[in-house]
Amino acid sequence: MKSAKPYIEEHKQRFIDELIELLKIPSISADSAYKDDVIKTASVIKESLEKAGCDTVEICETPGYPIVYGEKIIDKTLPTVLVYGHYDVQPPDPLDLWHSPPFEPVIKKTELHPQGAIFARGSCDDKGQMYMHVKAMEYMANTGQLPCNVKFMIEGEEEVGSESLEWFVTRNQEKLANDVILISDTGMIANDIPSITTGLRGLSYVEVEVTGPNRDLHSGLYGGAVANPINVLTKMVASLHDENNHITIPGFYDDVEILSTEERAKMAEAPFSKEVYCKALDIEDTYGEAGYTTNERNSIRPTLDVNGIWGGYIGEGAKTVIASKAYAKISMRLVPDQDWKKITQLFKDHFESIAPKGVKVEVKPHHGGQAYVTPIDSDGYQAASKAYENTFGKTPIPQRSGGSIPIVALFEKELKSKTILMGFGLDSDAIHSPNEHFGVWNYLKGIETIPQFYSEFTKLKTAK
Amino acid sequence: MKSAKPYIEEHKQRFIDELIELLKIPSISADSAYKDDVIKTASVIKESLEKAGCDTVEICETPGYPIVYGEKIIDKTLPTVLVYGHYDVQPPDPLDLWHSPPFEPVIKKTELHPQGAIFARGSCDDKGQMYMHVKAMEYMANTGQLPCNVKFMIEGEEEVGSESLEWFVTRNQEKLANDVILISDTGMIANDIPSITTGLRGLSYVEVEVTGPNRDLHSGLYGGAVANPINVLTKMVASLHDENNHITIPGFYDDVEILSTEERAKMAEAPFSKEVYCKALDIEDTYGEAGYTTNERNSIRPTLDVNGIWGGYIGEGAKTVIASKAYAKISMRLVPDQDWKKITQLFKDHFESIAPKGVKVEVKPHHGGQAYVTPIDSDGYQAASKAYENTFGKTPIPQRSGGSIPIVALFEKELKSKTILMGFGLDSDAIHSPNEHFGVWNYLKGIETIPQFYSEFTKLKTAK
Repeated sequence: MKSAKPYIEEHKQRFIDELIELLKIPSISADSAYKDDVIKTASVIKESLEKAGCDTVEICETPGYPIVYGEKIIDKTLPTVLVYGHYDVQPPDPLDLWHSPPFEPVIKKTELHPQGAIFARGSCDDKGQMYMHVKAMEYMANTGQLPCNVKFMIEGEEEVGSESLEWFVTRNQEKLANDVILISDTGMIANDIPSITTGLRGLSYVEVEVTGPNRDLHSGLYGGAVANPINVLTKMVASLHDENNHITIPGFYDDVEILSTEERAKMAEAPFSKEVYCKALDIEDTYGEAGYTTNERNSIRPTLDVNGIWGGYIGEGAKTVIASKAYAKISMRLVPDQDWKKITQLFKDHFESIAPKGVKVEVKPHHGGQAYVTPIDSDGYQAASKAYENTFGKTPIPQRSGGSIPIVALFEKELKSKTILMGFGLDSDAIHSPNEHFGVWNYLKGIETIPQFYSEFTKLKTAK
Repeated sequence: MKSAKPYIEEHKQRFIDELIELLKIPSISADSAYKDDVIKTASVIKESLEKAGCDTVEICETPGYPIVYGEKIIDKTLPTVLVYGHYDVQPPDPLDLWHSPPFEPVIKKTELHPQGAIFARGSCDDKGQMYMHVKAMEYMANTGQLPCNVKFMIEGEEEVGSESLEWFVTRNQEKLANDVILISDTGMIANDIPSITTGLRGLSYVEVEVTGPNRDLHSGLYGGAVANPINVLTKMVASLHDENNHITIPGFYDDVEILSTEERAKMAEAPFSKEVYCKALDIEDTYGEAGYTTNERNSIRPTLDVNGIWGGYIGEGAKTVIASKAYAKISMRLVPDQDWKKITQLFKDHFESIAPKGVKVEVKPHHGGQAYVTPIDSDGYQAASKAYENTFGKTPIPQRSGGSIPIVALFEKELKSKTILMGFGLDSDAIHSPNEHFGVWNYLKGIETIPQFYSEFTKLKTAK
């Protein structure tokens, strides 16, 4: 595969203009007021795939927003890459924190993006990163270099839980059959430190309710004599970690994948400055499980965090009340090979068992997902690694992310193939926040790198 | 002093009608929309004191709502009783839980009040109990039996912190000079088990704020690597009690009054059924400090309760956020001889000292007050005890309350006299709640018992 650089140089302005047009449509899947815009975006994606060279493009109806499917099958004996992305975006609130309107894209220079970045909702997550694949396809098709078959599956409900995607995938296994899945919906360490996300954590999210007396009580008349649900909740939650910040739920660590010393050493090569990290968050020190580094704590180790807590009087001033109920939302990030359903049950059993007499406890599971890991010796990873080497001149660092993308585990289960996460955004690109942006350099570098993946992957596969 | 029974029998209907008229005025001090009603109530109280036989009655302006002052001085060499009460009421919310409108009094029979109870906001707290004193005065004045001097001080800000009362008392020490202060703003055990409140707990109320990272973080990317302010807050709050439910703040118990075995034995005579107590609150068991009974835990022992807690995402569904801040409102009920300002400082010092690295902690004191105890060998207590014997035919049980009435400590400090708490309400009268009521029997029994106090107190004082 020839370098796409000259082609990109020639069409750069059009690539940017097309993305800007796409970003102008407020395809907010969470807000039904934008329904027409979400649907319109699907049509725009369909057209762009047709123009890029797909032979067949369909807007596939689902119980929710449509999924755009496109394909170009050049030879059934060659490997097939399935590209996944999403055309919906997060709501832009709080609007007053944006320096320019979220759906009126502007290009501005930043410290990390000296060549400019496109500021708009969805610029990085995921319209910009998804559109890199469309433009990479255009390059390969227009220059007659497409080395294998390609399928696109672009959905419109990623920001609201991808419910219709599961519905679609389980019904279209044959149509979606592939040898590797390619997604750009994550980030990399820095523009001069390419990295590939090889692991995602799983998730178990629960809500707990502690009920004491059947009504709110006067804290003077009852204080000290009955179990106060808030005090009890703090005791119960506090007991979920021991003094080394290990989680105390029996059986919680039973299935946790233990990484070799070598693997941990490789992870430790990723540049990390605790000083810079703490300064950015305005904290004096990090905090976490004994025996692990910060980068390990938020990637290869499971964790338990309270995401919300409430009970009693939370208005201004003082009220001397003992609340009848106290609540918390608690999430656990899981790692291979923990099963989220098993962990949810272990949490429930344990939490109910530690409730003192005098209170009733209810644990309501919210949702969850499995952790995921891509082996770095897989063809997909090796092809991606070579692609970065070709365009960045550096071997990318394999990196586990602390976040969760439940659909990746779904793909593995239903489509039996591995996912490669080639993300070109930066942590500082403010996805899900005001002033989301995506570097112009990153956008074009993605378009340059992706065709290299196709070529390297096809080489590896056909050599076997 | 002759029994007031015949007088009460003759004027019963008028006594009830007058109270009902008073209860119709919504004198809600917390809501400025009711300002005119609060002020109007002061005038009604003034008139009622004049009619009851006071020689001088004034509406005394303060920075807030006026205080109604009345007096009848029959002989400066005789003792003086100062009656305190309040004419303002709690807001009636939630309105939809009332079975009849809060300011349209109705008389209905209940299990505990077979002769009927007056249902209205303020019926028990404190218009009904305060008005018993006006009617007792009327009886003594009209029948020429007033045995001593009497002063009334009826305020309009008790439900919002009595700020103007402190202003008034510190400026009128001579005018308010007295030998004993009499208040009916508490309860008794049951209609056939008279009791006198001899102790009130003090209070220290604080708000704590735990700050972690300088913004809300994604719990996937940061979970396990930074101190989560909510998790930290639960650990800190949980650590304030040990496994025996003793409070762990160093020095907290240093000044706690230790009761003798005899005193505790006397307290234990008060009837108490744990089964009934638990059933009423729908709890399986009580909960509290090891080594003390339920009645001790909520009266002679200091306690620490979280009155409110909040942080992170508390809406519907799930959000995987690590909050930047977490908060709690915490109150400590104190006993003699703990000093609330010292305890507040001990709490602040301790709570700040146990914060782990990675968070910042702020403790904001709200307010507080000293505990109070009336010795049962004082003239005031002895006179009250005899008064109950005369009308109930039973010696009342001295009882410590878990609640706090900070003005009682203020009176002792500024006016150098003891307060006697002759309460005639029942715990079940739902003060501060929907469907507040006050038994007609209790109302009339109060009017019958109060004159006996004047007579017994004057006897004891003049005998010396």
